[in-house]
Amino acid sequence: MNELKSGERLDDLQRKGYGIIQNPEAFCFGMDAVLLSDFARVKAGGACLDLGCGNGIIPILMAARNETANFTGLEIQAYPADMARRSVTLDGLEERISIVEGDLRDAVGIFGASSFDVVTANPPYITDNRGIPNENDALTIARHEVRCTLEDVVAAAAAVLKRGGHFYMVHRPMRLVEIIMRMAAHGLEPKRMRLVYPYIDREPNMVLIEGVAGGRPQLTVEPPLIVYEAPGKYSQEILKIYSG
Amino acid sequence: MNELKSGERLDDLQRKGYGIIQNPEAFCFGMDAVLLSDFARVKAGGACLDLGCGNGIIPILMAARNETANFTGLEIQAYPADMARRSVTLDGLEERISIVEGDLRDAVGIFGASSFDVVTANPPYITDNRGIPNENDALTIARHEVRCTLEDVVAAAAAVLKRGGHFYMVHRPMRLVEIIMRMAAHGLEPKRMRLVYPYIDREPNMVLIEGVAGGRPQLTVEPPLIVYEAPGKYSQEILKIYSG
Repeated sequence: MNELKSGERLDDLQRKGYGIIQNPEAFCFGMDAVLLSDFARVKAGGACLDLGCGNGIIPILMAARNETANFTGLEIQAYPADMARRSVTLDGLEERISIVEGDLRDAVGIFGASSFDVVTANPPYITDNRGIPNENDALTIARHEVRCTLEDVVAAAAAVLKRGGHFYMVHRPMRLVEIIMRMAAHGLEPKRMRLVYPYIDREPNMVLIEGVAGGRPQLTVEPPLIVYEAPGKYSQEILKIYSG
Repeated sequence: MNELKSGERLDDLQRKGYGIIQNPEAFCFGMDAVLLSDFARVKAGGACLDLGCGNGIIPILMAARNETANFTGLEIQAYPADMARRSVTLDGLEERISIVEGDLRDAVGIFGASSFDVVTANPPYITDNRGIPNENDALTIARHEVRCTLEDVVAAAAAVLKRGGHFYMVHRPMRLVEIIMRMAAHGLEPKRMRLVYPYIDREPNMVLIEGVAGGRPQLTVEPPLIVYEAPGKYSQEILKIYSG
């Protein structure tokens, strides 16, 4: 593949022949991105923004499932944004996915207020930045809140969403209280939530949450999403999600 | 049993020979009370208050599990409070459980501020009071927010808890956003939460939540509590909780 640079590989997404360029030293997608792209719902023709899109995994997976919607990925780091653009070209999705290099804290300046029907985010989870060897490291920026905080993400989503628009985020359950309070403070009423448990007898390690801009209070908590039936054996639901 | 009045029955709690007086027309305990009394943790010698104790089920179950703690049940309705007092006497728990008839909105006036280590509550779940035939009906008062709101319960708990004290509540997941926001607003930081799912593939119908007065933010979400393995067949964990 002449599109690939040093350290990169091309992974098959098993959906419509789409592939994605990854680089383990800079950005590879995880299960959280796959689950979020499945959890998010997009109406026909909807305009969707992914905040901090990394190598473009969420827009590409969502484009595979939602054939009439249009997607924008905003990414602060030049190299993951470049990977994302090359994957979009490789997959022939240039008409439907735009990758923009920029800071999500400037999202309103870049895109304008009330400009999207859907915003997705798989943001950095970790607040504790002690002991980080290099805060300019690509993996550090993807995982730690060095370039943006949860507050920045929620504020950006609220600002660019239309009234009645939907915000979808994946995050860590340990931060659920802060997530709910910040969403509510920005008028993104939490309406739907699902906890992801690695095994049926373990604590959840991910939470999927949907907020509606200006929505009425009432939360639906969905059935538990169990990842493994047994060590190394995915549950039927996870297999179904991975198969698109 | 000469303790029983018309319409009452005496149920065996299967713990230390304790029984409880119930009346299907006024108050019978549900699984939520059993799960809450198991979820709540009490340190040795702790002082515990149950807000809206009904027929005293939560103090009696907790007294069975915590032999050195002392319990107070506050109940606004005279008849359930009377049932609770008679059950306490029947079980020989007069030294450890006091039943007080009163309004939880007056809890500080009755007990004083910062007077308890633990507060428990299994409050009315339903906000919608349309179509209630009689808002003085005992079952209506137990189920609907006619005599107290969620805000009243959380405010009362916060006011009577010592700093570092623990609040335990069972409620409906659909109200989780409001629960978290009201707890946080009253300084009861949500620290631990468990969702109760009737079946592994269903939405949860109860949430158990613990807040700590003045606690540091960080939530632990516990493994899912699944009630039924199959129709009519309780899970092993539910059987264990019911056996005390």
